[in-house]
Amino acid sequence: MIRNETIDTILSRRSVRKYSADPISKDETAALLKCAGFAPSGLNNQPWRFAVIEDEEIGRQLSMLTHYSDIIASAPVLIAVFLETSSSYHREKDLMAIGACIQNILLAAHSMGIGTVWLGEILKNKEKVSEILKTPDNFELMAVIAAGRSNEFSPGTADRKSPDETTFKIE
Amino acid sequence: MIRNETIDTILSRRSVRKYSADPISKDETAALLKCAGFAPSGLNNQPWRFAVIEDEEIGRQLSMLTHYSDIIASAPVLIAVFLETSSSYHREKDLMAIGACIQNILLAAHSMGIGTVWLGEILKNKEKVSEILKTPDNFELMAVIAAGRSNEFSPGTADRKSPDETTFKIE
Repeated sequence: MIRNETIDTILSRRSVRKYSADPISKDETAALLKCAGFAPSGLNNQPWRFAVIEDEEIGRQLSMLTHYSDIIASAPVLIAVFLETSSSYHREKDLMAIGACIQNILLAAHSMGIGTVWLGEILKNKEKVSEILKTPDNFELMAVIAAGRSNEFSPGTADRKSPDETTFKIE
Repeated sequence: MIRNETIDTILSRRSVRKYSADPISKDETAALLKCAGFAPSGLNNQPWRFAVIEDEEIGRQLSMLTHYSDIIASAPVLIAVFLETSSSYHREKDLMAIGACIQNILLAAHSMGIGTVWLGEILKNKEKVSEILKTPDNFELMAVIAAGRSNEFSPGTADRKSPDETTFKIE
C-alpha cells in the first residue's frame, strides 16, 4: 500500500467526540476555513458558508437542539456549515461540494492534531440553529462540525468496508 | 498561515483536465479506493460504490455522453462513483458523505502526483452510464472522476473566495 503524509491523514482520521480543555488557536481556525474553501465545486460556485462559534452561551443554546448535547457543549470550537441557497446551481451537486469542503476541514484539523466530529442529527432543528446564529435567510444549515483537542483519540476503531466490497467489477 | 503536507495538498490541488500517456499503476488505483472508503458517513453507512474504468472502448462509449468527451477519452483511469440507494438512510446526508469520499480520492491522487477532475455534467446521462457499465439497479451515478498524469499542471489558477467572504460573523 502506497503511503505518504496525506494518505496517512486520510486513513487515520476518526470522529473525535470528547475534548480536553485546551483551546483551538485563531491561526488554527483560520487554517480550517482556508482549507474549506479549496474544495472543488461545480462551476466553481463555492456555495459553502460558515459560522464559527466559540461563545459558550451560544454553544449551550445549540446543544439543546440535538441528541448530542455533550459534544456540542464541550467543544471549544463549532463550525456551522451552510449552503448559500442563492449561490446554488444544482442542489445535489452543491451538497456533494459541501461534503468535499467539510472533508477538507476534518482532514486539515486532524493534520494539526485537532479532533473533529461531523454532526448531522442537529439538522432536524436547522431553522432554530439559524435563528440562534441570526444567519441570513439564504443560509441553509448542512452540518455542524465540533472541534477540539482530545486525549481520547484512538485510531482504527471505525469499521470500514474493503475496496473489494465497494467496487463493482465491470464485465 | 499554518502549513503541513496535508494542508499543502489541500491548498495546491486543482482540477487537471489533460493527461500524458503515462499509466496509473494498480497500486495507485488501490490507494485511491482505500482512501475513498475512509470518508465519514452518517451512521457509518458508507453508501459509496465505485467502478474503475481502464478499458479504452468503454471509455470511448462514456465519452459520448458528455460535453467533456476529450477529458473522458484521454484519461487512463476513470472512477465512476455511485450512491448505493439501498444503503441510503438520508439522501442529502448521503450525498454530502459521497462528496467527502470523492475529496479523499482527489487529495490522495494529488499527493501521489496524479491529476484528477471531478465530472458532474455527465450525470445528465446517468442511466446510460449505468447501462454501459452494467451496474446493479441500486447504483445511482453521482460523479465520474478522470485521473491521469499531466505535464500541464499549474497550481494556483482557480479563483477562491477568502474566508472573510464565506464566513458569517455572529453578533
